[in-house]
Amino acid sequence: MANYVEMWKELGMDLENHDALCQVLPTAFGDVYLSQENRPAAMDFWDMVVADIHGIRPAELIEAQKKGQKVFGTFCVYVPDEVVLAANGIVTGLCGGSQFWVSGGEKVLPKSTCPLIKASVGARLDRTCPFFRIADMYVGETTCDGKKKAWEILGKDVPMHVMDMPQMKREKDIKKWAEEIADFAAVVEKMTGNTIEPENLNHAIHIVNEKRKALARVYEARKAEKLPISGKDALLMMQIAFFDDPVRCAQMANRLADELEQRIADGVSVFPAGTKRIMVTGTPMAIPNWKLHHIIETSGAAVVCEETCTGTRYFERLVDESKETLEEQYRALAERYMGINCACFTPNTGRIDDILRLAKEYHVDGVIDVNLKFCCLYDTEGYTVEAALKEAGIPVLGIETDYDDADAEQLRTRIEAFVEMLG
Amino acid sequence: MANYVEMWKELGMDLENHDALCQVLPTAFGDVYLSQENRPAAMDFWDMVVADIHGIRPAELIEAQKKGQKVFGTFCVYVPDEVVLAANGIVTGLCGGSQFWVSGGEKVLPKSTCPLIKASVGARLDRTCPFFRIADMYVGETTCDGKKKAWEILGKDVPMHVMDMPQMKREKDIKKWAEEIADFAAVVEKMTGNTIEPENLNHAIHIVNEKRKALARVYEARKAEKLPISGKDALLMMQIAFFDDPVRCAQMANRLADELEQRIADGVSVFPAGTKRIMVTGTPMAIPNWKLHHIIETSGAAVVCEETCTGTRYFERLVDESKETLEEQYRALAERYMGINCACFTPNTGRIDDILRLAKEYHVDGVIDVNLKFCCLYDTEGYTVEAALKEAGIPVLGIETDYDDADAEQLRTRIEAFVEMLG
Ligand code: SF4
Ligand code: SF4
Ligand code: SF4
Ligand code: SF4
Repeated sequence: MANYVEMWKELGMDLENHDALCQVLPTAFGDVYLSQENRPAAMDFWDMVVADIHGIRPAELIEAQKKGQKVFGTFCVYVPDEVVLAANGIVTGLCGGSQFWVSGGEKVLPKSTCPLIKASVGARLDRTCPFFRIADMYVGETTCDGKKKAWEILGKDVPMHVMDMPQMKREKDIKKWAEEIADFAAVVEKMTGNTIEPENLNHAIHIVNEKRKALARVYEARKAEKLPISGKDALLMMQIAFFDDPVRCAQMANRLADELEQRIADGVSVFPAGTKRIMVTGTPMAIPNWKLHHIIETSGAAVVCEETCTGTRYFERLVDESKETLEEQYRALAERYMGINCACFTPNTGRIDDILRLAKEYHVDGVIDVNLKFCCLYDTEGYTVEAALKEAGIPVLGIETDYDDADAEQLRTRIEAFVEMLG
Repeated sequence: MANYVEMWKELGMDLENHDALCQVLPTAFGDVYLSQENRPAAMDFWDMVVADIHGIRPAELIEAQKKGQKVFGTFCVYVPDEVVLAANGIVTGLCGGSQFWVSGGEKVLPKSTCPLIKASVGARLDRTCPFFRIADMYVGETTCDGKKKAWEILGKDVPMHVMDMPQMKREKDIKKWAEEIADFAAVVEKMTGNTIEPENLNHAIHIVNEKRKALARVYEARKAEKLPISGKDALLMMQIAFFDDPVRCAQMANRLADELEQRIADGVSVFPAGTKRIMVTGTPMAIPNWKLHHIIETSGAAVVCEETCTGTRYFERLVDESKETLEEQYRALAERYMGINCACFTPNTGRIDDILRLAKEYHVDGVIDVNLKFCCLYDTEGYTVEAALKEAGIPVLGIETDYDDADAEQLRTRIEAFVEMLG
C-alpha cells in the first residue's frame, strides 16, 4: 500500500480518526471478499481499488485538479454526470456506506435519519474521507426529506448546488427536470470555466452510455443459470463505478463481462447447482456496505440482481445520442433520468413494474426488500412492493437494517429461514 | 348532544369503534379546556363545536352536498382554499390529531411515520371519522416523504388529486406553484361542475383574507402584556378554523377579538402577572392534539404564539385582491402561499427570520420547539432553529413527542425545569 499520509494531511483530514478507519476496512474486505472461492480474475482491478480506496483515486483527482479540472461530488443517480463531463469536470459519488461515519452525522442530524445521510454528513464534518475533502462543489437534490435538510447543514461548510427534483412524473415534470439540468449546466460552466457545447455534451453522453452498457453486460451474465459471479462482486463493481473514471469503469466492466461470458460458455459457476436466486430491492448500498449481500451469500443463497441505485437503477436505459442542440440534449437527458423509478416519486408504479420484470429476467426464487432504517420513502413503498410480489406468487422478505453490525445475527437467522423456505 | 348515529351509519362508519372515540373525547376536552378559569365568553362557540365535533359540521356538509356542493379534504396550508370556494366548493382540513387513529395507520404505514400521517390514514381506513367519509375528493401535496407516499395508499380508497410542491423558493418555483394552482382549479371545476371566473375567485380571495385578518386580530391580542386568552383557547380556534365555514370562522374570530381587545383595555388577564411567555414553534397540532399546550399552561407558563401551521403560518400575509385575470390571480395566490415557511423547503432561512421576529412581537421569554416524532423535516431544521435562538439570546427547549400520553409526565418535568430556568 502506497503512503498517502502526506496527501491526507494536505487535504486537512483528521489523520488520527482516519487511521482507525484504515485499520478496519482491509479486515472487513478480506473477510467479506477475499474469502470467496473461484472469483473472476478480472475482479483484481476492484480489489486493488478497494485496497487503496482513499489513496489511488483521490491521488488521481488531486492530479487532475492541479491541471485545472474541477471535481463535483454527488449523492443521487438523478444528477446527470454527462453535464459535468462535457465541461471537462469529474464526478465522484459521495454517499457514505460505513457505520464509522454515522456518529459524526448524529452530531448535527436527528438519530432518526437514514444512515446513508448521517454517514455522508459525518464523513464531511469529521474530515475522515478524502473524497469529501477533494470535491470542489457538492451537488444535492430534493429527493427525500433527510437529504433536503442535510444540504442546508453541509452548505455551510462547502459550495453546494441543489437541483430541485420534481416529485411526480407528468410531462411537465420531465420538462422541469430538463430545465434543472440546463441550470446545473450553467453552474458547471461557471465552476469549470469551460463551455458546454452540443459536441462535447454528446461525447459525454456517449461515454456514460458506454459505461451503462458495460455494467449492463455484467448484469446480463447474472441472468445465466450457472452464475459466473457472486452478488457481492457485482455489488463491488457497482459501488466503485460511482467513484471511478467512466471510461476506465467501462473498460474494466467489459473485461469482467468477457470473462463472465466465457465462464457461462464453459459452464463455470461460483455457486453449487440449485443455489437459490435472490433479488435485492430497495435502498442503495454505498461502499463499504456489503452487510446484507454477505449474509445472504453465506446463508446458502446467491444475489443475482439488485433493484437499487447501486444496481439496475444506475445503468438501465440509455440517453438518446442523436440530438444536436443543447435544448434537445437536456430534454433527452431528462427523459432518461426521469425513467429511474425512485421511491421519492408519487405515485411510483413504474418501480413495481420494474421489480416484476427483473424478477422474471433474473429467474429469481425470492426477493429481499431492504430498507435503510428511517428511509420513510422505501419503507412505505415496501408495503406496495410486498403486496405486488405476493400477488405475483414471488416469495418476499422485508428487512430493515442500518450500517451497524449489531443486528447481523438476527438478520442471518431470518434470511436463513427465508432461503430454507424457498427450498 | 344531538343524535347523529343515523348520519354516521349512512356514512358507512365503523360505529362500534367510533363510539369508543366519542366516549373519550368529551372527558379529554373537559379536563383540558373546561377546567380553565375566566375564559373569554366568546369561546362558547368553539366549545359547542367541539362538543359535537363529529355531528354539527358533518351534518352541515352533508346538507350542502345534497344541494350539489362538493367537499374537498386537505392536509396542508399550502393548498389554496380560494380555488375551491370560487367554484362553490367546501374545504375541510383532514389532518388527524388523535392517538385513537394511529394504530389504524400503522396497519399500512411504517411505525416510524409521523403520527399526523398515521392518524390521518387510520381515520380513513378504519372509518372512524365522518369528515374523511364525507369528502368527495382528497387533495394531497408533495411536502414531506411520509405524505407523498401515503397518498398512494389513500388514493386506492378515495379520489385523490396531488399537487406537486416545489421544494425550493426561487422565482421559477413560484411560477411552478402558480401552474399547479391553475391545474388544481381545472380539477375543482370538473369536480364541482362550476366555472372559476376572476369575479368568483376574487370574492373567494376576499373571504379567505377576511378570515386571515380575523384570526390575526386574535393573535394580535396575545401580544399584550396582560394576556386576555390562554394559548389553549387560541389553539382551539385555529384547529376548528380548518373545518369551519370561512365566513363564520371570521365572524367568530372577530367576535372573540372584540372581547379580547376589551379585556386588554380593562386590564383583564387569564394568567397571573409575571407568567412566563412561551412561543411554540415546529410541527402542526391537529385537533384534538392539545397535549403540549396543556402541559405548558399547567406548568406555570403561558403560550403566547404558535409558529406552526395551526398558528401563524396559517394566517399571516394576505393575497393581493387587486388582480383581474385568472392568470394574475393564480400568481398572486402562489406568491402568498409560497411565503409560508415550511421546513419542507431547502433552504428555509425565512422561517428563522419569522421565528426571531415573532419572538420579539410576542415578547417571548422562551421558545419550545416541538417536533412530531419521525418528522424528519422539522427535526433536522430544529438544529438550525435552536442555534439561531441561542445566538439571539432566547432560551429554547427542543421537544420531540407524539400523540401518545405515555411521555406526558416526562415532558412535564422537562418543561417545568425550563420554565423555572426562565425565572
Ligand atoms: S434511492 Fe432515490 S434519492 Fe437515493 S440515489 Fe436513488 S434515485 Fe437518488
Ligand atoms: S435511503 Fe432513503 S432516506 Fe436515505 S438518502 Fe436514500 S432516499 Fe433518502
Ligand atoms: S408543516 Fe408544512 S407540510 Fe405540514 S401543513 Fe404546514 S406547510 Fe403543509
Ligand atoms: S409533521 Fe412533518 S412528517 Fe408529519 S405530515 Fe407534517 S411535514 Fe410531514
